Amino acid sequence: MDIEEAVKIIQGNNDFVLTTHLNPDGDALGSLMGLGLALLKSGKKVSMVLPYPVLASYQFLPGCQHVLQPSDVLGRFDVGIILDCTEMARAGEKAQDVIENTRCLVNVDHHISNQYFGDLNVVDPQAAATGEIVCSLLVRAGITITPDIATNLYVALVTDTGSFQHQNTTAKCLRTAAYLLDCGAKHNLIHQCLYEQKSLDSLRLLSRCLESLALNKSGAIAWMTISQDVLLDSGAVFDDSDGMIDYTKSLKGVEVGILFKEVSPGEIKVSFRSKNYLDVNQLAACFGGGGHERAAGCTVQGRIKNVEALVIEKTEELLAASCGGPKR
Amino acid sequence: MDIEEAVKIIQGNNDFVLTTHLNPDGDALGSLMGLGLALLKSGKKVSMVLPYPVLASYQFLPGCQHVLQPSDVLGRFDVGIILDCTEMARAGEKAQDVIENTRCLVNVDHHISNQYFGDLNVVDPQAAATGEIVCSLLVRAGITITPDIATNLYVALVTDTGSFQHQNTTAKCLRTAAYLLDCGAKHNLIHQCLYEQKSLDSLRLLSRCLESLALNKSGAIAWMTISQDVLLDSGAVFDDSDGMIDYTKSLKGVEVGILFKEVSPGEIKVSFRSKNYLDVNQLAACFGGGGHERAAGCTVQGRIKNVEALVIEKTEELLAASCGGPKR
Repeated sequence: MDIEEAVKIIQGNNDFVLTTHLNPDGDALGSLMGLGLALLKSGKKVSMVLPYPVLASYQFLPGCQHVLQPSDVLGRFDVGIILDCTEMARAGEKAQDVIENTRCLVNVDHHISNQYFGDLNVVDPQAAATGEIVCSLLVRAGITITPDIATNLYVALVTDTGSFQHQNTTAKCLRTAAYLLDCGAKHNLIHQCLYEQKSLDSLRLLSRCLESLALNKSGAIAWMTISQDVLLDSGAVFDDSDGMIDYTKSLKGVEVGILFKEVSPGEIKVSFRSKNYLDVNQLAACFGGGGHERAAGCTVQGRIKNVEALVIEKTEELLAASCGGPKR
Repeated sequence: MDIEEAVKIIQGNNDFVLTTHLNPDGDALGSLMGLGLALLKSGKKVSMVLPYPVLASYQFLPGCQHVLQPSDVLGRFDVGIILDCTEMARAGEKAQDVIENTRCLVNVDHHISNQYFGDLNVVDPQAAATGEIVCSLLVRAGITITPDIATNLYVALVTDTGSFQHQNTTAKCLRTAAYLLDCGAKHNLIHQCLYEQKSLDSLRLLSRCLESLALNKSGAIAWMTISQDVLLDSGAVFDDSDGMIDYTKSLKGVEVGILFKEVSPGEIKVSFRSKNYLDVNQLAACFGGGGHERAAGCTVQGRIKNVEALVIEKTEELLAASCGGPKR
C-alpha cells in the first residue's frame, strides 16, 4: 500500500479534484468530505465532485456545501483522488471524465475487489472503511483533524461497520474512532442524524414487512416480502426498506435471511444474507445475481409467490448440500 | 476514586465473593464474570453469587457455569466486591447477606447516583460501563486478560453503550473496546448472541407495536401501545418489548417517545424517552414515577385509551412550558 507516496503527493501538490462512487454511502461521503476539508484547511485548492446532489439524509455532513457537479469544474487538475471506489466506472461517466483528466490519479479504497486502476493505489482491504485509511493519511501528512473533518471520518467508520457491529470491526477501527472523538467528532449529532431521522411511513413499512416474516420447516431460512401493494399502502418508498433484511437474520437459529421486493409488477428483487456458513454469492448466482459470501442479491422475473417458492427451494437445496452446518 | 487501593486489595487477598444487581444486564454480568474469571486465573479463591439463574440470553458468557446461589456459599469471606450496583439493596436480600458478611466490601460502579456504601468505593461516573472500570483494575493489577475475560468485558461495554451509539460513548470507552479485541474478545460470537437470537413471536410483537405508532399534531411526541390482547395474539412475552421504545425516538422531529404497556387489565406501564431537552424524569414524576432526564417511567391505573390521553396531554403541557426548544 503506497501510503507514504500518497502523503508525498498530498504535501507536494496544490491542485486537487476528489470524487467517490455513485449512490454514495456514509463511507464514500465521509471520506470525500473529510479529505476535502482537510486539504482545504491546508491551504490547497480542492474541488469535490459528485454527479448527483448529496442525499438529504447526509446533508448534515460538514463540507456538503462545497460539493460541485462535474459540469461545474473546468480544465485539468494536478491530482485526482478517487475514494471508496472499486473501479473507475463506479464513479459515473461525468465524474470519471473529470478525475481521469489529471496528471496523477490516486485510488484510495478498502474493498478487496479493487481493480488497482490508479497511478497510485492506496488500497487496504484490512481497513474497516475508506475513512480509516483517510485518517491514517492525514495523520501521516501532519494535517490537523478539525471537529468537522473528524465528524466526516467518524460517519465513514460508523456506517461501514454497522455501528461497530459488523465483522469488519477491528481494534484499529475502534482506536481510529476514539481518536476522531478526541479530535472533536460530534457523536450525538452523528447518532441523531444517522439513526433518528426516520419517517412515520418507513416505520409503517417495517411493520408490514415484519408481518410477512416466515420461516421454513427447519427454521434455518427466514424471509419477508414487500409487494407493490404493501409499499403503496404504507406510503413509504423502496429506499425505506434499506436494512430491513437484517431482521430476518436477527432470528435465533436462522442461517439465511431473504427479502423479496416487488420493484415493479413481475420484477422481484431478492436480497440474501447469511450468518455463518452458507455462501449466498453462490445462491444469488443461480439466479444470475451475485455479491459476497454473506450478502448478495439478484432480480427474478415472475409472480411474487412463484419467485418465493423457487428461491426458497433452491436455498434449501444449497443448505442441504452444505450438510446443514459450517464447512471446516 | 480509590482504584489503586482496590488494586492492592486484589493483590493482597485470596478469598473473594462477587455479586451484582438484581435483573442483571450485560454490564452487570460481564463485569461480574470478567472480574471473577480474572481472579480465578490469578489463583485466587472466588465465589460469584447471584440470587437467580443467569438469563438464557446471557448464558453464552464464559464463566456462567461458576455462578452460585447465595445459599450455596457458607462462612465469611475476606473481600466482597459488588459491581454495577448503586446501593446495597439492589443486590437483593440474599446476596446482600453474603456480601456484607466480609472483612472488606469494595463497591465498583459507574452510576452517578451511587451511594458510596462500600469500605472502598471505586466509582467513576465518567466510565461508560462498570466493565470499563474492571478493565482498568485488571490492567493496573497486572492480571492478563484472556479471551474469555475480554469477551465478558466487551459485552459490558457494548450493552451499556447501545453498541457505542449512546451519549456515554467516549474515546476511552472505544479504546478499551479496542484493547479487549486485542486480548481476544470474540466479536462475532458476541454480536450474534446479543442481537441475533430473537424469537419469531418477538418480531411479530414488534410488527404489532409499530402498527400502533402515532404522532401528536406538532410531531414532537410519538407513542406506541401494547395491550394485553396484542401481547397474547403475538405469542410474545413482555420482556420481548425491551428496547422497542427506541423506535419512537427514531422518528424525525420527535422529541419525546412514549410506550404504553398494559401489564395487567387496568395497569399501564408507561416508559418515556427524550432526545434533546425535555426532562422526562420530571414528566414521569407527575404520575408518581421517575428515572433520568432522557429515560424515565411510571405506572398509571386506568383504561389504556384514558391513560394515553392523560399522559399525552401532560407531555404536551410540559413541552409547551419548555417553549418547544432546549433551555439554554
